[in-house]
Amino acid sequence: MSPAGPQRRGPGRRPGAGDTRGEILVAARAEFAAKGYDASSVRAIARQAGVDPALVHHYFGTKEKVFVAAMALPFDPADRLPQVLAGDPAQLGERLVRTFLGIWADPDFRAPMLGMLRSAFTGEQGAKLLREFVGSALLGRIVQAIGPVDPLRVQTAVAQMVGVAILRYVVRLEPLASADPDEIVALVAPTVQRALLG
Amino acid sequence: MSPAGPQRRGPGRRPGAGDTRGEILVAARAEFAAKGYDASSVRAIARQAGVDPALVHHYFGTKEKVFVAAMALPFDPADRLPQVLAGDPAQLGERLVRTFLGIWADPDFRAPMLGMLRSAFTGEQGAKLLREFVGSALLGRIVQAIGPVDPLRVQTAVAQMVGVAILRYVVRLEPLASADPDEIVALVAPTVQRALLG
Repeated sequence: MSPAGPQRRGPGRRPGAGDTRGEILVAARAEFAAKGYDASSVRAIARQAGVDPALVHHYFGTKEKVFVAAMALPFDPADRLPQVLAGDPAQLGERLVRTFLGIWADPDFRAPMLGMLRSAFTGEQGAKLLREFVGSALLGRIVQAIGPVDPLRVQTAVAQMVGVAILRYVVRLEPLASADPDEIVALVAPTVQRALLG
Repeated sequence: MSPAGPQRRGPGRRPGAGDTRGEILVAARAEFAAKGYDASSVRAIARQAGVDPALVHHYFGTKEKVFVAAMALPFDPADRLPQVLAGDPAQLGERLVRTFLGIWADPDFRAPMLGMLRSAFTGEQGAKLLREFVGSALLGRIVQAIGPVDPLRVQTAVAQMVGVAILRYVVRLEPLASADPDEIVALVAPTVQRALLG
């Protein structure tokens, strides 16, 4: 908040140099907003931030992780997927719904996620960004993990979960808004299970 | 568009008197925004518009119809419900999903509906309005028509349909965005059927 900026800096470094990470995030937000997720690259983000691409990789890792940080998500939701997808296929729906509800219960995740959804409502730019990220980070991995499955089936399963999140956390319909996660899992997991694994 | 205003007026009437309907809608929007759906009344809307409540009923009918007009919905989605709910219970899920998709396919319905959803994302005022209208106009009637059913089950069925609408029309995920309604009905109707009628 002070005019000098809140970042700690080493002595003798030029002003702002301590916030390379922040500058990369500013560049990333501009890049993702302008081009969407798929067409953006770590290289272009680095160029826009005036740093070496290796530095972007050093701070964040992959493009997906740059995106997650730029959107202020507290973690990459897709990081939970391998564990969820790896267990007993007969309980896949249950694990997915339980993990999804657990992630949405975290306000630090929910706020930026709702911000992304809001911007999808506002214009095609936001919709494209969300669509490409969800497609790449989530849907692609689900299809990859459970084998050849009709993408439309996967998307209706995701629609069931997204609809629950919106009615529970945005519209706040009762009793859904206050329901115990176990109750919701009991009702919704069979739907997700059937959609994914017939 | 002309400075004199687009409304037709009888000769000798005071300027604006021909737009009583419009004035009622302005008052209605203010009333619904301030109090939400449940606490608003035709009487209070009439008072705010400076007209007799009978005139509001004359122009619009019930509070629900005032709301539908104020939100610029081209028709009251709940008007379709009696027909949908009346047929063979074994095909209830199919009729609901097909009707829901048909309504959302109409851009004149979709635009104001998306506006309401957007304002629900923006703050509690919009969320409350949507929640109370959906609760009163839709959920209440479904429960009334199919008999005692766990409201949470009804809401997970609605969540499935709302999720499909959002991924199809807001996020525009492919293949869902371009899928034939019949394909979506085939995948989603069984979920809705099971949620409502076990």
